[in-house]
Amino acid sequence: MHASSALTTPNRAASAERLYAAVDVGGTKIAGGLVDRDGALVFQVTRATPPNGTAEAVLGAAHQVVDLLAADPRWGRVAALGVGSAGPVDTARGTVSPVNIPGWRDFPLVRSLAGHPAVGALPVVLGGDAVAMTAAEHWRGAARGHANALCLVVSTGVGGGLVLGGALHPGPTGNAGHLGHISVDLDGEPCPCGSRGCVELIASGTAIARHALRNGWRPAGADRSAGAVAASARDGDPVALAAFDRAAQALAAGIAATATLVEIDLAVIGGGVAQAGETLFAPLRRHLAGYATLSFVSGLRVVPAALGTDAGLVGAAALAVARFGPEAKLRS
Amino acid sequence: MHASSALTTPNRAASAERLYAAVDVGGTKIAGGLVDRDGALVFQVTRATPPNGTAEAVLGAAHQVVDLLAADPRWGRVAALGVGSAGPVDTARGTVSPVNIPGWRDFPLVRSLAGHPAVGALPVVLGGDAVAMTAAEHWRGAARGHANALCLVVSTGVGGGLVLGGALHPGPTGNAGHLGHISVDLDGEPCPCGSRGCVELIASGTAIARHALRNGWRPAGADRSAGAVAASARDGDPVALAAFDRAAQALAAGIAATATLVEIDLAVIGGGVAQAGETLFAPLRRHLAGYATLSFVSGLRVVPAALGTDAGLVGAAALAVARFGPEAKLRS
Repeated sequence: MHASSALTTPNRAASAERLYAAVDVGGTKIAGGLVDRDGALVFQVTRATPPNGTAEAVLGAAHQVVDLLAADPRWGRVAALGVGSAGPVDTARGTVSPVNIPGWRDFPLVRSLAGHPAVGALPVVLGGDAVAMTAAEHWRGAARGHANALCLVVSTGVGGGLVLGGALHPGPTGNAGHLGHISVDLDGEPCPCGSRGCVELIASGTAIARHALRNGWRPAGADRSAGAVAASARDGDPVALAAFDRAAQALAAGIAATATLVEIDLAVIGGGVAQAGETLFAPLRRHLAGYATLSFVSGLRVVPAALGTDAGLVGAAALAVARFGPEAKLRS
Repeated sequence: MHASSALTTPNRAASAERLYAAVDVGGTKIAGGLVDRDGALVFQVTRATPPNGTAEAVLGAAHQVVDLLAADPRWGRVAALGVGSAGPVDTARGTVSPVNIPGWRDFPLVRSLAGHPAVGALPVVLGGDAVAMTAAEHWRGAARGHANALCLVVSTGVGGGLVLGGALHPGPTGNAGHLGHISVDLDGEPCPCGSRGCVELIASGTAIARHALRNGWRPAGADRSAGAVAASARDGDPVALAAFDRAAQALAAGIAATATLVEIDLAVIGGGVAQAGETLFAPLRRHLAGYATLSFVSGLRVVPAALGTDAGLVGAAALAVARFGPEAKLRS
């Protein structure tokens, strides 16, 4: 068989067959996967995140995910483990405090996963979910080949990550690119983060739905989400269009600020709100032309994310590729 | 003599005596200097920038500065030439378009200086003046030892530069860190750059004086500058205090945005407005606590720049050190 022949001729063949293990921790599920050198997800498992579970219960679910991965015959070809997690994260300390997993506060996720017998001596890398998505889009998606780019996830919240000088730039604690909590309205409404006028407060899916409802939007059915606002906008509803326009304006100001601060030439937008397509992208491009005015940022483009539902796991694997490189060694 | 003995025992002694040449181009003067390995300015010359001069006339003044440097007996020990210039600059193309030097638009400054016979085969590096100041503060000033920092020049305008991951981060065209033109007020007043609500429009010395005058500030004498507003603020004038408070708020929003985007732990503030001392820094720290709220940015500090009037030339030399390293070879 192909796999065993790779194991018995370790040099070139083993290198060709190297895999990355991936774990993606979210508030509703913990996913695990094996990703090949081309970024293809070749095996995938999922466990529910225990709702309001204790730290131990949530870790138990994560260990079950690793159990299932390790039971796959291809586990022996895994070169490294990448872990993406809902934030905040602190990659310097290897800890996570996901907003939607109250049992984990400053939880030592890297150490706890490294304690699983199957992980053993594998190198482990942790990143926030938006930084993982950025690594994935740079590795195999819309930011491929771009040396300087911003990738955003616009859904319930707004997260992001940066590629600078050709490499992922997670920052010392893994939170760089967190565009959702920069203020673009210094006298604006208070944000739950403690600041005011944050991009997330104006541009998230939650904010789009709130803006529409406040201004008299009547949902066609029970769905009061940003997706339903997008459907109304496509039907020409002026209130729904205005809600997307306001979100696009805040995103444009934030993206232009990023380009002016670090010089990027591409912004990739993923997440549920990006599914609205031109309902979001048309006003976004228009507002961007108004904020990104200096010569060195005027070539900035915005494009949709290229990776779909696999992005979380491919992103976790991409963190391992970004940290350890495609030449990460197989365990002896 | 010391200098000639260095030249005749080239190995260790020459290394110890290596110098960097520096040229600092501004709207009123072009300065030149020789800077030693410790960042000390050991020789300095100045020529006036020809007001409204043609491209050739301004270049003539710059060549005269190089003539004077090259006439110094220590010129033979120069390892590299660093050039700081008022912006915008494009370091990828080696061109400058200083706002206050109308004769130079997309002017090929690097090629034109390399064409001076004394520059010959010296490596030449160009940077914007605020990026040069950042290199200087990181090399020998307040940002020394900091791996991630923002340095700002707050005077007539607001410029800046970044240190990321231990190294100067000028970006592909040398303009990264340009905090003055990020929008912190997305519905704010139009900025001459074409955007609106830019930090510079609220926080520059020009803006501070305008804010004070608009709100009824009466200068004690003929001086209507931000420095005079600062003097009134020190005397307790509430309008003058409010003008500095508003500037500090905009700077705080911009600094917090930078920290949230790229993870810095230090912001260094130089330029004329920083001379106001606690009149600026006290409200700046207060507002920063309101905008920099996420755990990974809450340790951010703001401090005054450490380098004084030599910063322009030391900064130009620092660009050479940042690019070519302290081990830049002497010409053979």
